Amino acid sequence: MAKAGLLTSAANPLLRDVRRAVLRGALTTDGCCIAETFHLLGEALGSGLDVAAVLAAQSARQAVEKYVRRANGVRVFVLPDALFRKVSATESSQGVMTLVRPPAWRLDQLFGGQAMVVVIDGIQDPGNAGAILRAAEAFAASGVILLKGTVSPFNPKAVRASAGSVFRLPFVHGVDASLALAALEERKLDVYSATPDGKKSLAQADLRRECAFIIGSEGRGVSERLRAGAVDLKIPLSRVESLNAAMAAGILLYEARRQRTALR
Amino acid sequence: MAKAGLLTSAANPLLRDVRRAVLRGALTTDGCCIAETFHLLGEALGSGLDVAAVLAAQSARQAVEKYVRRANGVRVFVLPDALFRKVSATESSQGVMTLVRPPAWRLDQLFGGQAMVVVIDGIQDPGNAGAILRAAEAFAASGVILLKGTVSPFNPKAVRASAGSVFRLPFVHGVDASLALAALEERKLDVYSATPDGKKSLAQADLRRECAFIIGSEGRGVSERLRAGAVDLKIPLSRVESLNAAMAAGILLYEARRQRTALR
Repeated sequence: MAKAGLLTSAANPLLRDVRRAVLRGALTTDGCCIAETFHLLGEALGSGLDVAAVLAAQSARQAVEKYVRRANGVRVFVLPDALFRKVSATESSQGVMTLVRPPAWRLDQLFGGQAMVVVIDGIQDPGNAGAILRAAEAFAASGVILLKGTVSPFNPKAVRASAGSVFRLPFVHGVDASLALAALEERKLDVYSATPDGKKSLAQADLRRECAFIIGSEGRGVSERLRAGAVDLKIPLSRVESLNAAMAAGILLYEARRQRTALR
Repeated sequence: MAKAGLLTSAANPLLRDVRRAVLRGALTTDGCCIAETFHLLGEALGSGLDVAAVLAAQSARQAVEKYVRRANGVRVFVLPDALFRKVSATESSQGVMTLVRPPAWRLDQLFGGQAMVVVIDGIQDPGNAGAILRAAEAFAASGVILLKGTVSPFNPKAVRASAGSVFRLPFVHGVDASLALAALEERKLDVYSATPDGKKSLAQADLRRECAFIIGSEGRGVSERLRAGAVDLKIPLSRVESLNAAMAAGILLYEARRQRTALR
């Protein structure tokens, strides 16, 4: 492991780039995503992906170096705590940010095995988007498509909520809706839109077949254009109108997984 | 509807009380919880609960008055936008806060019908706690117990994430673990602790029987003492170690509901 460098100026080009990426919820100019938390540092180091640098707050330096010790060639930069807080913009930071170069996937890589694709349509909340990626990996979805108008999966809050799934699960983002629909149709997937007022109940759907779930935002739901080519599917609920969007996605994925593995 | 009052000073006793409750994530001294968003204003007005007051930012005044028009005797206070932001402490506020006196439930009211109780053990994230309350109502749980050391269900972020379930679903909070366990045992409920390394798989559990699910925080899981009296239950996952705590709770509740209503 190289000796850790010390960064003390907010004008440092790397720090300015990181801060800009944090504020925009996007990649750095160098194409790295920012992974907060020690858990994600571990996931990043174990992922086989290129870890461009690790930023550590002075108070977290020892803990960070312990993690990085076994990783050859990873650069660690130590920042005074106040500067770290300024750069990270996270209220409850653990004092570590890892710059990871995420894998780049092509749309045609999202249909592996018995395809099951999640299409995220316009969800703005990074925590929800990240939680959907995490659930998608957990229930063996083959890939996730984030349509144009959806939060970036590289928003640091999305990366955090994904708990590292963003490093492993095939996904593409910023995809045009018509392009996504064409890809689903070409592969003859059963396309479902998750809507609280759907006519078909989840339990009536045969999810062992190759399928896709379109998940809209809570406020606006799935866009009309996408619903037109999909079967409306509802999760039967008691008393309440709807679920949180990530929760709804997780339950669809669980049910599909349950049917596919014949768990009962 | 009474004429709206105007509040312009941060030193106003009501505003100081509200600000304190927001910062502490707790009830006001008057025993009201703070419900942000227009959705929750509507839920509060439709709940039959006492709505002590509605605070509106100047820029949201018309929209608030439109909501409140049909509700007799509800007091609306209008605040300059800057003062409202200062009091609400919410980044993306919609400009409305409703002060609602929540129902007070007793532990013995949580076991109605075919009992299904969620026990939350130490979850600190208010968004997760609120999402669990929402999912519990959605899948017809009979009640929720929030143990000591768990975030308050009246934290404004929890109220918001509950989407109004906090106004309707029976729950108690700040409960001692031994008291909760005794109540579950007395009623002979099947008690399950949700743990990624559980030996029993979700699909092997007969959840048509009266049951309780103990949900721990992601960091620390279910406390040893509670696990000792419970059956470890896991959601079969592919590749990832665990799910977000609220997501795990939602899936257990969905599966129980699915079994109970014989959806397939």
